[in-house]
Amino acid sequence: MVGNSNQSNQSSLETSYDVVGIGNAIVDVISHESENFLQDHDLVKNSMTLIETDMAVALYNEMSPTLQSSGGSAANTMSGIASLGGKAGYIGKIRNDHLGEFFSHDINAAGVDFVVKPAKEGLPTARSMIVVTPDGARTMSTYLGISTNLRKDDLDVELLESAQILYCEGYIWDIETTKDTIRSAIAIAKDANRTISFTLSDSFCVSRHKEEWVELITDKVDILFGNEDEIKELSGCNTLSEAAQWIQGRVQIACLTLAERGSIIVTENEIIGIGAKQVAQVIDSTGAGDLYASGFLFGYARGLDLKTCGELASISAAEIISHTGARPLVPLKSLITSEFNK
Amino acid sequence: MVGNSNQSNQSSLETSYDVVGIGNAIVDVISHESENFLQDHDLVKNSMTLIETDMAVALYNEMSPTLQSSGGSAANTMSGIASLGGKAGYIGKIRNDHLGEFFSHDINAAGVDFVVKPAKEGLPTARSMIVVTPDGARTMSTYLGISTNLRKDDLDVELLESAQILYCEGYIWDIETTKDTIRSAIAIAKDANRTISFTLSDSFCVSRHKEEWVELITDKVDILFGNEDEIKELSGCNTLSEAAQWIQGRVQIACLTLAERGSIIVTENEIIGIGAKQVAQVIDSTGAGDLYASGFLFGYARGLDLKTCGELASISAAEIISHTGARPLVPLKSLITSEFNK
Repeated sequence: MVGNSNQSNQSSLETSYDVVGIGNAIVDVISHESENFLQDHDLVKNSMTLIETDMAVALYNEMSPTLQSSGGSAANTMSGIASLGGKAGYIGKIRNDHLGEFFSHDINAAGVDFVVKPAKEGLPTARSMIVVTPDGARTMSTYLGISTNLRKDDLDVELLESAQILYCEGYIWDIETTKDTIRSAIAIAKDANRTISFTLSDSFCVSRHKEEWVELITDKVDILFGNEDEIKELSGCNTLSEAAQWIQGRVQIACLTLAERGSIIVTENEIIGIGAKQVAQVIDSTGAGDLYASGFLFGYARGLDLKTCGELASISAAEIISHTGARPLVPLKSLITSEFNK
Repeated sequence: MVGNSNQSNQSSLETSYDVVGIGNAIVDVISHESENFLQDHDLVKNSMTLIETDMAVALYNEMSPTLQSSGGSAANTMSGIASLGGKAGYIGKIRNDHLGEFFSHDINAAGVDFVVKPAKEGLPTARSMIVVTPDGARTMSTYLGISTNLRKDDLDVELLESAQILYCEGYIWDIETTKDTIRSAIAIAKDANRTISFTLSDSFCVSRHKEEWVELITDKVDILFGNEDEIKELSGCNTLSEAAQWIQGRVQIACLTLAERGSIIVTENEIIGIGAKQVAQVIDSTGAGDLYASGFLFGYARGLDLKTCGELASISAAEIISHTGARPLVPLKSLITSEFNK
């Protein structure tokens, strides 16, 4: 144990949740395709592109047989925290349609408290068409639907105040309405002296919001998650080491994920290297970053040292990439040694 | 090659399809649960139970996070045949609802011709709640919905006449309407001098229809598929060898699947043993029998000898049990050597 110094900034008020997440509530529609499929449909590998209804229908019609699995970045992360034995809440918007019921069943069944009422009218529940190539890479085309309509009055103030950590999804920044909502959520959590965590989500998403995000992250964020492309895009640095230096001091902790090269945890004074947990074969990398965040945040909320938090993150990410879909198929709690289970 | 004697009974008329399948069009709702879940909900492991709406809702509410994947025994088999490079058609009934669209997308995307129009009213599309235990066993609770409404006028006579083999699902016998429909389909195919194949589906299903099935199979069926429990139940024999002897002469070919012990192909004069293809771990056995039938029927339709048909069956079944869901995640054609690809 490196010690519990990571808890120094946290409120001493009693909290009933480890983490509450806020993001786009999405059902994933997943197919396995050849590399040619990406080229034929002008899809940028590993990225997330927002699409409209027409494109969603056209792309779906071209896809191979699919699996449908509940998704949404922050929702995946919260499901992972619950699967580790943590107490998680979720804020996101669905319609009262089939996909909405499916999403709602799965997040509740995972043990996450999800209390936002489904909309009775308006756009349908969001879905993301996820194309998985033979190397396990995922390329996402997302129709946001009703998730763009998450408003300030959907925020459960008590839930936000009672969670030790707020986790915000960068993706949600693409829509003005939801951006305002997330700013309000951050303000509520900050006022309650809670820890603010944020994921950069996608490098194209970073490039769309770079200036705002540098300011937001510096002013408000305690724990930042991002991969190499994303932190380089945010910082404008060409190398990972420059980007790591850039982020030091801007946030308390930055977790930078490096795919098969593991991850580094960057604090003001140190960098901790975490090895990737080996898997027999990467079947579908969807949710790798989301579940990394689950492991890290669960450990952090439970007062574990940063190295242990990173190891929990690696174990959680490894489970998710060994099968299709971004939600755990076995209780993550069963994969961690009793040492971590406290 | 044992030779092409297996083709002797077949019509010399030109056929444009290898196989046409008829069955209940179902979407699978799959979760991974502990063994206790089966006991707590009075579910009989490895069986298929028909349930009503109330039970379907209650069970779904108790299930862990789910994956939704198109299913239906004969539909899985036809998808497997298309995935092997064969030409397959499918007859089954869906509603014009979300699950119906999902089913329709997936079977068409697999390359199967599915031409039955979705019903515009009536019950919703069928779904099967599939509980997968840690040993990979699957236990199914099926709400049949609109699939019970497959009628004679849904039969595409031209499709039935133009397929070398008709494949019938035993499950469909549970409803009078669909039983009549399948009898009509068999009559049409018989009149066109086509090969009739039939799967016993489930041992409880066999016990419900034993007398009728012994008569049907003896009179009309050329190729029979079943597992050890099912053939014992049908024959009333206590041992596999007795059951194998019983079926000899009643059908031209019986393919008896024995899980990890492989399968035996029983003809009037011989028994051929086929080894199970090893998989690293059985994740979900759903569809094992269905995909076994895909491999066998594809090989048979293409005039391959019975041993080779059995090997294609084993390869196809091995792919399906190595992941969650009963439809192939990779083209089965890519798993078979060029020797088989003719």
